[in-house]
Amino acid sequence: MNYKIAVIKGDGIGPEIVDEATKVLDVIGEKYGHTFTYTNVLMGGCAIDATGVPLPDETVKICKESDSVLLGAVGGPKWDTLPGHLRPEKGLLGIRSALGLYANLRPAVLYAPLKDACMLKPETVKGGLDILIVRELTGGIYFGERGRRQGKNGEEAYDTECYSVPEIERIARVAFETARKRKKKLASVDKANVLESSRLWREVIHRMAKEYPDVECRDVLVDNAAMQLVRDPAQFDVIVTSNMFGDILSDEASMITGSIGMLPSASLGEGKLGLYEPTHGSAPDIAGQGKANPIATIISAGMMLRYAFDLQAEADAIDTAVLAVLEKGLRTPDIAGVGGQKTLTTTEMGDAIRAEL
Amino acid sequence: MNYKIAVIKGDGIGPEIVDEATKVLDVIGEKYGHTFTYTNVLMGGCAIDATGVPLPDETVKICKESDSVLLGAVGGPKWDTLPGHLRPEKGLLGIRSALGLYANLRPAVLYAPLKDACMLKPETVKGGLDILIVRELTGGIYFGERGRRQGKNGEEAYDTECYSVPEIERIARVAFETARKRKKKLASVDKANVLESSRLWREVIHRMAKEYPDVECRDVLVDNAAMQLVRDPAQFDVIVTSNMFGDILSDEASMITGSIGMLPSASLGEGKLGLYEPTHGSAPDIAGQGKANPIATIISAGMMLRYAFDLQAEADAIDTAVLAVLEKGLRTPDIAGVGGQKTLTTTEMGDAIRAEL
Ligand SMILES: CC(C)[C@H](C(=O)O)[C@@H](O)C(=O)O
Ligand SMILES: CC(C)[C@H](C(=O)O)[C@@H](O)C(=O)O
Repeated sequence: MNYKIAVIKGDGIGPEIVDEATKVLDVIGEKYGHTFTYTNVLMGGCAIDATGVPLPDETVKICKESDSVLLGAVGGPKWDTLPGHLRPEKGLLGIRSALGLYANLRPAVLYAPLKDACMLKPETVKGGLDILIVRELTGGIYFGERGRRQGKNGEEAYDTECYSVPEIERIARVAFETARKRKKKLASVDKANVLESSRLWREVIHRMAKEYPDVECRDVLVDNAAMQLVRDPAQFDVIVTSNMFGDILSDEASMITGSIGMLPSASLGEGKLGLYEPTHGSAPDIAGQGKANPIATIISAGMMLRYAFDLQAEADAIDTAVLAVLEKGLRTPDIAGVGGQKTLTTTEMGDAIRAEL
Repeated sequence: MNYKIAVIKGDGIGPEIVDEATKVLDVIGEKYGHTFTYTNVLMGGCAIDATGVPLPDETVKICKESDSVLLGAVGGPKWDTLPGHLRPEKGLLGIRSALGLYANLRPAVLYAPLKDACMLKPETVKGGLDILIVRELTGGIYFGERGRRQGKNGEEAYDTECYSVPEIERIARVAFETARKRKKKLASVDKANVLESSRLWREVIHRMAKEYPDVECRDVLVDNAAMQLVRDPAQFDVIVTSNMFGDILSDEASMITGSIGMLPSASLGEGKLGLYEPTHGSAPDIAGQGKANPIATIISAGMMLRYAFDLQAEADAIDTAVLAVLEKGLRTPDIAGVGGQKTLTTTEMGDAIRAEL
């Protein structure tokens, strides 16, 4: 079978890490008899340089015509002084919205061979760490009405956090369904003691919890969630939350694992078309030096096989190969300190994973 | 001199811990020749039970007539099912607003004798940990317009994050002035790559930074801040941020120290009148059992002496007494595991601190 993948290499280390991931896909294709065809499209800083805008229409069009989208990372200091609507991040927000990718799945996992990288004391995470954060991605304060105006105290700026019942329902459904396939424990994070949008969020979650009696569902206030992720992260299985809270908590959780160079993410919409990208950023400081860790992007490509193309055995093969390489003590510089025996470049790490396949 | 203190014991462990703190103040008063007179006022759950509302007018009136306010903690499961406007938290939000307490100072400190309580690995915090979070407390999404309405997708709920230039200026001034008295390092946390209110926030911070050339000021995005607090908290000295981000980050930071039962807070306004309270909550599960740690409240009373009454020697005496008790290995149950030799009840801990004075 032939799968059409739109590829957004992006900025910084984006091109290097994406190249390793597509090479991994090619090996999978050969072994299992699939063809992956890639169409490179521009987004972020490189798109600004080439076309003047962070998200050219052409990019959206090609993504929509593809079976899936693979993204490296966007942004860098070069474009940080441009006005807001011309910044690389606008490309990211724009593509999420244009493709209707309302569900962002962000795992925070402690890989056994890297367990010493965890920022917390070993006794805190003895049972390991395997959290999946389901973040709403196309609503809330990210996309609400905003602006400047004259208030009674002079100039003011405002943003609107807004959620409708169907928006909450669809992200909640993703979370409940995902929890059902895991440990059946869902924590819904909100700030219902202050925000009206959180109170509606909580009402919808409670109503839907009745449809999923097998899933244990509880509410956690966002300030408490930020604490509990540090105090006892192993208490969490699936966490569902708003766009803004998810941005903060998923970054906190991924850093706690100490392996942010290892963590993938998937952004999904109504259909099969999704966007797969590493959790980490474009790391412009190490771009082009062969120091970047391609594993998060490679695992993201694996998630694509699993979720977008339903290729379970192929996805498993990637996960197994990554684990084998780690168990052999092979490391990129970012994780070199943790039980590693040999430090590899970006390409060497890609090669090592491909050799396992 | 005579100082009039309005005392809000509140709910849960509130009464026990406040009693220990006022007894400490009395010893200070005797030793240094001051009189502290206390007026107990109701707020939170106990106010709902007694008067039907979480913040009686009488409470606001007496607080305004006092030189300072000492608060234990409010809230508990008993009142969690009441409608929003009748919940204990409304009392807390109400008093902040009524007294104009726009600056919330929340230290996250690792006490040397308790350094093993820190949730992070020892190598991460070898240089200790001493962060002061300056949280805006009477603006932002906590107090913006909110409600329900019919949108194009059915029922929706909204909240408004809004900041005016003077609101940002006054909290920034507190932060710059505080940083100047400490390590002269300020991190301003926002989400300027998405929010218009954050862009205005950043503009004002940059403009004011010119008035404080001796303070090194930098911008940190909130998701990155949540990560950096875990990765390398020692990089921070003073952090200034909005009400919502401050709520999340200060709880994360205090939990990282592992000593949340030790952390005080001060909420300040234009004049000298401030509200002093422990960072932790009302812990209804251990209320009335003599298990609560009174130290955060006692240190909060010390902060009151320092900031509200300008009694530096007296405040130092409290800090020294607390440290001495900890160094002797005396502990309440919450910190019993960390290098402690003897576990005390709430009152015994208060007595031990008073004995040092
Ligand atoms: C770049 C930024 C707009 C983005 C976000 O806040 O969503 C990023 O932090 C992320 O989490 O993917
Ligand atoms: C109780 C709640 C409304 C309050 C807040 O969010 O401000 C609390 O979390 C705090 O930080 O003091």
